[in-house]
Amino acid sequence: MEVTRTLARYVVGSNLNDIPEAVQKEAVRSLVNWLGCAVGACRHETVDRALEALAPFSGKAEATLMGRGEKLDIFLAALLNGISSHVFDFDDTHLKTIIHPAGPVASALFALSEHMAISGADLLHAFILGVEVECRIGNAVYPEHYDVGWHITGTAGVFGAAAAVGKILKLDEQQMVWALGIAGTQSSGFREMFGTMCKSFHPGRAAQNGMLAAFLAQKNFTSSNQVLEAKRGFANVMSTARKYEEITENLGKTFEVALNTYKPFACGIVIHPSIDGGIQLKKELSLTGDEVTKVELKVAPLVLELTGKKTPQTGLEGKFSVYHSLAVAIIHGAAGENEYSDACVRDPNVIALRDKVEATIDKSMRDDEAIVKVTLKDGRTSEKHVAHALGSLERPLSNADIDAKFNGLVTDILGEAQTAQLLEAAWSILSLNDASEISHLSVPR
Amino acid sequence: MEVTRTLARYVVGSNLNDIPEAVQKEAVRSLVNWLGCAVGACRHETVDRALEALAPFSGKAEATLMGRGEKLDIFLAALLNGISSHVFDFDDTHLKTIIHPAGPVASALFALSEHMAISGADLLHAFILGVEVECRIGNAVYPEHYDVGWHITGTAGVFGAAAAVGKILKLDEQQMVWALGIAGTQSSGFREMFGTMCKSFHPGRAAQNGMLAAFLAQKNFTSSNQVLEAKRGFANVMSTARKYEEITENLGKTFEVALNTYKPFACGIVIHPSIDGGIQLKKELSLTGDEVTKVELKVAPLVLELTGKKTPQTGLEGKFSVYHSLAVAIIHGAAGENEYSDACVRDPNVIALRDKVEATIDKSMRDDEAIVKVTLKDGRTSEKHVAHALGSLERPLSNADIDAKFNGLVTDILGEAQTAQLLEAAWSILSLNDASEISHLSVPR
Repeated sequence: MEVTRTLARYVVGSNLNDIPEAVQKEAVRSLVNWLGCAVGACRHETVDRALEALAPFSGKAEATLMGRGEKLDIFLAALLNGISSHVFDFDDTHLKTIIHPAGPVASALFALSEHMAISGADLLHAFILGVEVECRIGNAVYPEHYDVGWHITGTAGVFGAAAAVGKILKLDEQQMVWALGIAGTQSSGFREMFGTMCKSFHPGRAAQNGMLAAFLAQKNFTSSNQVLEAKRGFANVMSTARKYEEITENLGKTFEVALNTYKPFACGIVIHPSIDGGIQLKKELSLTGDEVTKVELKVAPLVLELTGKKTPQTGLEGKFSVYHSLAVAIIHGAAGENEYSDACVRDPNVIALRDKVEATIDKSMRDDEAIVKVTLKDGRTSEKHVAHALGSLERPLSNADIDAKFNGLVTDILGEAQTAQLLEAAWSILSLNDASEISHLSVPR
Repeated sequence: MEVTRTLARYVVGSNLNDIPEAVQKEAVRSLVNWLGCAVGACRHETVDRALEALAPFSGKAEATLMGRGEKLDIFLAALLNGISSHVFDFDDTHLKTIIHPAGPVASALFALSEHMAISGADLLHAFILGVEVECRIGNAVYPEHYDVGWHITGTAGVFGAAAAVGKILKLDEQQMVWALGIAGTQSSGFREMFGTMCKSFHPGRAAQNGMLAAFLAQKNFTSSNQVLEAKRGFANVMSTARKYEEITENLGKTFEVALNTYKPFACGIVIHPSIDGGIQLKKELSLTGDEVTKVELKVAPLVLELTGKKTPQTGLEGKFSVYHSLAVAIIHGAAGENEYSDACVRDPNVIALRDKVEATIDKSMRDDEAIVKVTLKDGRTSEKHVAHALGSLERPLSNADIDAKFNGLVTDILGEAQTAQLLEAAWSILSLNDASEISHLSVPR
């Protein structure tokens, strides 16, 4: 069974016309969501520190650090945009594998689009293929690969970036096999790094390293022909699960990007149904928070295990507190980056409501389910049962939701008019003659 | 137990004066050996292809591709020199772990020496510490880590490069902890790549990535504080062995570089005792090969398992043929790169003698042992028992042997006069005010 070669052959032979329109549309949604995250976080200190360390060593300054405008060589731009797009933990999620698929692939492709002419359609096609490659490889090794400690967005993402860049470089089948091999032998990234700057470093490096693999393969730099399936290849060395059929079956028939999801809220995904319920109650009852005397929350055990922090002290800790998150949902009707600032976490009004939240677990509930009940000063009560959180596959964000998320992330950086222009260009990527227009529009004028 | 921090604290606090002179001398021998390998292989097609792919993206062209003179940014120079130094498989070996220690560390340091002023003594000190870090980490996880399929020169080497560069950058303890963390989360490289260009890519990338880690840490880019020992850190994720005391005990008292060894022959190390015996017989009996009617070889089982190829077709295959190797030892009295050319492997005289070699295994023999017996046309026989191969810890190469190896590798590149000058500078590194003199002297005038 030739696993690596089968995958490479598919990528090399794929035509955009053979990919269903619905899949292409979901890919556009993925790109719009990624772009909002990348631009929105571009001033994060993680980006600042990496830029300060590495910019002095940049090669030809041809690719844009999105949202800012510093120019870097395409490898460094891929790294920095990859960091930026993940640092808020607000990017897309392939729920089957917890891969954040866009970061490694899109960060490489947009950087590349400032080095060589790439149409929007070609970029979207390469993006779909890159996501396909990384998520199929993820499917083959998940969850065992993740459980042992690998940050799968980095370890699988590097293959996706290599395949996507390799498609643009028009690698032949053998070169694509080598590109996947060179990518695989760089596969890395520990979950141990969560909570540090290295977490977002992983998708950035996956983008950069995958691109490196494709450029080396283009010059016939050789690797193993069986990086995925060899006795000492990726699946055997880095996982105990090796479901190779997940990689080789139904190629060109099913598309992993169609299963992509987008977070409406800037925090751990298990908190999302609780926030969803809180926002629904706020809207229906026009709550401000003051009128609430008690909030009762019922959730699956995992929710409190992962996010049971009752008295968060910082914005980052707030992201792991279902108590804080439910309070801001009721007070602000939102849970974006603003609601996870240090200031918001220390706001007396938020703290007062947070302390009124009583959370209990119910083992019969799913992780994406919540029941929120408020009791008001006038004695009224109201309850919401969220069966599937907004942003799940069952209740995907609408395009309008994605717009709202994008605006919330980007307006502070670009202002309203330019944000609208960038958003319009991103939705229209299929008709762009030159995909680099996106990068240029991301820079404040 | 703070494993990572203990190691970082030692590196940050180390003074060259506290390192015994004998250790420093062995480090100089390691550097001389590394330099010969790096310069000798600089025209290898692996180097050519990587250079062609990546030079267009180089940053400030300040560091030398050794032996050639192309200038690259320090990260690319570290990569390329790291590739070059390993591509002949002729570099140093830390026999306890099969790490080739110099490649990842020296390739980074010499590139760095063209970016900032580094004295020869400071470079040697950082080199000793880098080797200490990578080999101690290797000791902690070997052999299980290697057995599962990791190319330990890459996976451990990245830590060594980070520590060495971090020492030159004068990182404080916390920054050094982060540097090791950022290095660790890039740790990668499959043994599956052996026999392809990616094998030498591994030490090159270890050099480049470790340097990246140190520069990021210098700007306070954060990582986990326990990359080595955390539940989801390096040792637990990438090995089943976790002998942390190998990392933390006797720091500053024992030195791994003192255990470094140098190959006299350009092939797999298990063939070395056979070659050694062959050369001894050639010298004693003034053999040309024609007079030999039979060669009987007795070796440990592993020798034929790894290098039992009877009819190699290419130079590379010749490196895995104890038959070819013994034949050239008797005919040429040598086993350098020339004896592993495609032409030599196809030489009718060599093939004729190779076919007269009868190899048998003896389970009571060690891997570094061989018995070689020749029978001549006139009926005489002669036998050599090599208890430990030349180049082993028990029979280390003399400085003169290292000189001869260096001259064999470098003279074709630099000519005799400049080779002598470079060699002299390398032996004198402790007294160089500016270590970059080595890089400059490596370029043909």
